[in-house]
Amino acid sequence: MRLLFLGDVVGRSGREAALKRIPELRAALKTDFLLVNGENAAGGFGITDKIAKEFFEAGADCITTGNHVWDQKELVGSIDREPRILRPLNYPEGTPGRGASIFQLQGGRKVLVMNVMARLFMDAMDDPFAAVEKVLRQHRLGGGINAVILDFHGEATSEKMAMGHYLDGRASLVVGTHSHIPTADLQILNGGTAFQSDAGMCGDYDSVIGMKKEVSIARFVRKLPTEKMTPAENEATVCGVFVETDDRTGLAVRAEPVRVGPRLANHLPVVA
Amino acid sequence: MRLLFLGDVVGRSGREAALKRIPELRAALKTDFLLVNGENAAGGFGITDKIAKEFFEAGADCITTGNHVWDQKELVGSIDREPRILRPLNYPEGTPGRGASIFQLQGGRKVLVMNVMARLFMDAMDDPFAAVEKVLRQHRLGGGINAVILDFHGEATSEKMAMGHYLDGRASLVVGTHSHIPTADLQILNGGTAFQSDAGMCGDYDSVIGMKKEVSIARFVRKLPTEKMTPAENEATVCGVFVETDDRTGLAVRAEPVRVGPRLANHLPVVA
Amino acid sequence: MRLLFLGDVVGRSGREAALKRIPELRAALKTDFLLVNGENAAGGFGITDKIAKEFFEAGADCITTGNHVWDQKELVGSIDREPRILRPLNYPEGTPGRGASIFQLQGGRKVLVMNVMARLFMDAMDDPFAAVEKVLRQHRLGGGINAVILDFHGEATSEKMAMGHYLDGRASLVVGTHSHIPTADLQILNGGTAFQSDAGMCGDYDSVIGMKKEVSIARFVRKLPTEKMTPAENEATVCGVFVETDDRTGLAVRAEPVRVGPRLANHLPVVA
Amino acid sequence: MRLLFLGDVVGRSGREAALKRIPELRAALKTDFLLVNGENAAGGFGITDKIAKEFFEAGADCITTGNHVWDQKELVGSIDREPRILRPLNYPEGTPGRGASIFQLQGGRKVLVMNVMARLFMDAMDDPFAAVEKVLRQHRLGGGINAVILDFHGEATSEKMAMGHYLDGRASLVVGTHSHIPTADLQILNGGTAFQSDAGMCGDYDSVIGMKKEVSIARFVRKLPTEKMTPAENEATVCGVFVETDDRTGLAVRAEPVRVGPRLANHLPVVA
Ligand SMILES: [Fe+2]
Ligand SMILES: [Fe+2]
Ligand SMILES: [Fe+2]
Ligand SMILES: [Fe+2]
Ligand SMILES: [Fe+2]
Ligand SMILES: [Fe+2]
Ligand SMILES: [Fe+2]
Ligand SMILES: [Fe+2]
Repeated sequence: MRLLFLGDVVGRSGREAALKRIPELRAALKTDFLLVNGENAAGGFGITDKIAKEFFEAGADCITTGNHVWDQKELVGSIDREPRILRPLNYPEGTPGRGASIFQLQGGRKVLVMNVMARLFMDAMDDPFAAVEKVLRQHRLGGGINAVILDFHGEATSEKMAMGHYLDGRASLVVGTHSHIPTADLQILNGGTAFQSDAGMCGDYDSVIGMKKEVSIARFVRKLPTEKMTPAENEATVCGVFVETDDRTGLAVRAEPVRVGPRLANHLPVVA
Repeated sequence: MRLLFLGDVVGRSGREAALKRIPELRAALKTDFLLVNGENAAGGFGITDKIAKEFFEAGADCITTGNHVWDQKELVGSIDREPRILRPLNYPEGTPGRGASIFQLQGGRKVLVMNVMARLFMDAMDDPFAAVEKVLRQHRLGGGINAVILDFHGEATSEKMAMGHYLDGRASLVVGTHSHIPTADLQILNGGTAFQSDAGMCGDYDSVIGMKKEVSIARFVRKLPTEKMTPAENEATVCGVFVETDDRTGLAVRAEPVRVGPRLANHLPVVA
Repeated sequence: MRLLFLGDVVGRSGREAALKRIPELRAALKTDFLLVNGENAAGGFGITDKIAKEFFEAGADCITTGNHVWDQKELVGSIDREPRILRPLNYPEGTPGRGASIFQLQGGRKVLVMNVMARLFMDAMDDPFAAVEKVLRQHRLGGGINAVILDFHGEATSEKMAMGHYLDGRASLVVGTHSHIPTADLQILNGGTAFQSDAGMCGDYDSVIGMKKEVSIARFVRKLPTEKMTPAENEATVCGVFVETDDRTGLAVRAEPVRVGPRLANHLPVVA
Repeated sequence: MRLLFLGDVVGRSGREAALKRIPELRAALKTDFLLVNGENAAGGFGITDKIAKEFFEAGADCITTGNHVWDQKELVGSIDREPRILRPLNYPEGTPGRGASIFQLQGGRKVLVMNVMARLFMDAMDDPFAAVEKVLRQHRLGGGINAVILDFHGEATSEKMAMGHYLDGRASLVVGTHSHIPTADLQILNGGTAFQSDAGMCGDYDSVIGMKKEVSIARFVRKLPTEKMTPAENEATVCGVFVETDDRTGLAVRAEPVRVGPRLANHLPVVA
């Protein structure tokens, strides 16, 4: 199975690039399942139903999120009607939406996607390791599930790597989001799980993590009130991870980064 | 001028790889000035005089550090005798050692190196932006200084990018350290400063940021006392950043990542 | 019922004062149930079986702890044999010990004690509000339980007050620990729950939260390695909270602070 | 000299109580110099020029602040015209306003007031210990200054106690603010400095640190968007610290807490 995961889409610039690239990449990479993290798609803060619909129409199969999931409050009311949008699994019981979903592909293959928040330097959440463990006790890679994907939304590289190894052999892909910067550490771990600490954002990299750099610098340097943070507006670079799995084991047999756009060294896997 | 910066060396495995690769890379990349972050070189915690000597003998011109600088206490007493080892600039007044140093190369070119700690999710330190500003008021790129390099030791990608743009046009290279994971965002910013959020470590990437994965996972999952964290012991991958500057302006004209070793997609710049 | 809760005992000085005062206070205040937080009793870090035994022999009915619970590793192995020692309830499933215990007093009255960690500015733990909720769904004040006491071990006054109000009417006493400083905000909330943000420590108040002040100041001011933190050694002041409940409702009808020792304004309730 | 320091005034309820009590307390305690922390006076967030004027007219000599100082943006522009309002001293160079001010009383006595932010669990600021040290190198208690007062705005009790001892013998009063809960640890340290970890707020204590409890609890428990935090509206309790100094040495000879209002155990010093 061919999986493509795109990192946090930031603002209009990120949306335009993602919407344009999703069909192109889907075709070029013969993608069976495409995910995109949408937590910053609406003006940098959250996602609306309308934007989610655009992603799905462009070819996304699943939208993951993170700490910004509720920044657009309409999602609190609408998420229960859209099983393809995930919010972090380790929110309190009773939180609207779901943090894990099983997708059935044409031909009958099944993909389990989980979206979990890390805790180091992040908001107080329930144990992310216990949360994924609980889901995997019910749905096992190989045991009827053809691919398991975790979007681990977090800050600290240590917690992300620990999760990668924790799930090694039990997931097809563990990929971090939230830092908005792609890491160059993509590898297939010893047990067969593809891992990258962070997918990077789909956003304007002439910025501070996708937001206008002047405002962000001012906050660090002057510590006085500034205007609102808004997304940078130049053309975005689309960043993500491409993985090919063995359908029998669900483990990764190939993994390559994806970076397409005007900034950063571009990389596009070649799929025969 | 050709600059090579290698990220945090972690433990014996990282040291062995760095000591072996430094002369090779120095030659292959026709390096004029080579830096290495040594804050985790001694068993993962700090650096000793003996280890520093080995790095210098292998061909390092400068050793930078970070929050682990004093983990080996002997350095508190010895750092004042070794101007080539930097500790973060924004420690309190009266702290032994220095956070900025000017190196005179053969032929008379001068390189200013600064080592500063970020603050987001880090220890309480004085303002890193003010600290570099103060140094740059005295020593200006172009004004007698041929290259300015900042090792910005920090956690948050936002603070690192903000610093990159803050110094854009005033530094040859702003490179992050501390996360122990190389980022894939190397770019020459609009003003001519090469920037990468994190250089990545020189360490074993079959690990949790260079340390044995079992112990680290146990700490996240069980929250009970574990044995001491120790460095992972398989062969290390050496990670860093290579930059070529225009000697007249001091600005970057070429920038490429360096990744050499058994893990991660390897990349070695070709220097004619 | 008369309840006496004493805050974090710090080191030898704190132990000596607590051991001396426990029988005296027990008698003077005609205490039915006496608790003491022991997380710093052993040299400032954790508690040993031997020290716990001393507290029980002196007249403590229950020992609560906090983030330092495992600092003395022997407790990991022994806690399961001692139901009177609690560790925070919201540790991961499978953690040795228990975070809630029901104590049966002479005459048949039952006291439920819970020990939970807050999360703001603290280690990553599972939701403390959900954790107490789950226990209280099983054991209700009034429904066979004559008193409910929560030691909420935390840093932020906001989280502590929120917990106080969250349990108002459902607990006899919600008292904070961990800051090592008694607060002067003891009140009986509208619903009948006695609340104080922090009980304060049983320790030497000529110190920095019970530890030698010179070492602590040095760490804040110089940021260089110092000798190990050790408890201050002058006579300790014993701090805590005294509550009288209505045995029918389990709610508080009287609440007064306790402060006995050479420092701080002393206060001892008068019990007829 | 008789000093009265009142803690963070929160919202309308806090303002009304403070404005009513300031003249009463001033008279009853024969106060020579009265300070109030005003950082939450305007709807819980910041302070306006109009509110500051009301405090001064009621009898305040000096208004200190903290991390909320700029929440009402008008103060950024106006603070330079009002030397009686302090913002934390350890903001970056170039920040409007001042963090230390010398007040000349009738009869010629001089009072130095400093307002500094702590760093543990707080925003990134410059070294608070170095900041006060620098001021005290110029203006020494006894050396022409009759009283030195520090409002140390911070979260952690350890950092606050460290500062108390650091200035012991060099300040008349070191008092913490920001936690909004009065501590019961007022003491005159060995060197003669009165110290209390936190003054407590002037606000409604049937709340979560002065704000409506329902909204605050919801944020801790549900982690979904809530309405805006607003101050609780019942009658406020005024909290603070009263200190008498020896005019010759400037050191404290008497220190008592002040708590006046419908909640918390009230305490009012008796001044002959
Ligand atoms: Fe994001
Ligand atoms: Fe995020
Ligand atoms: Fe490091
Ligand atoms: Fe570091
Ligand atoms: Fe404690
Ligand atoms: Fe604690
Ligand atoms: Fe405040
Ligand atoms: Fe504050």
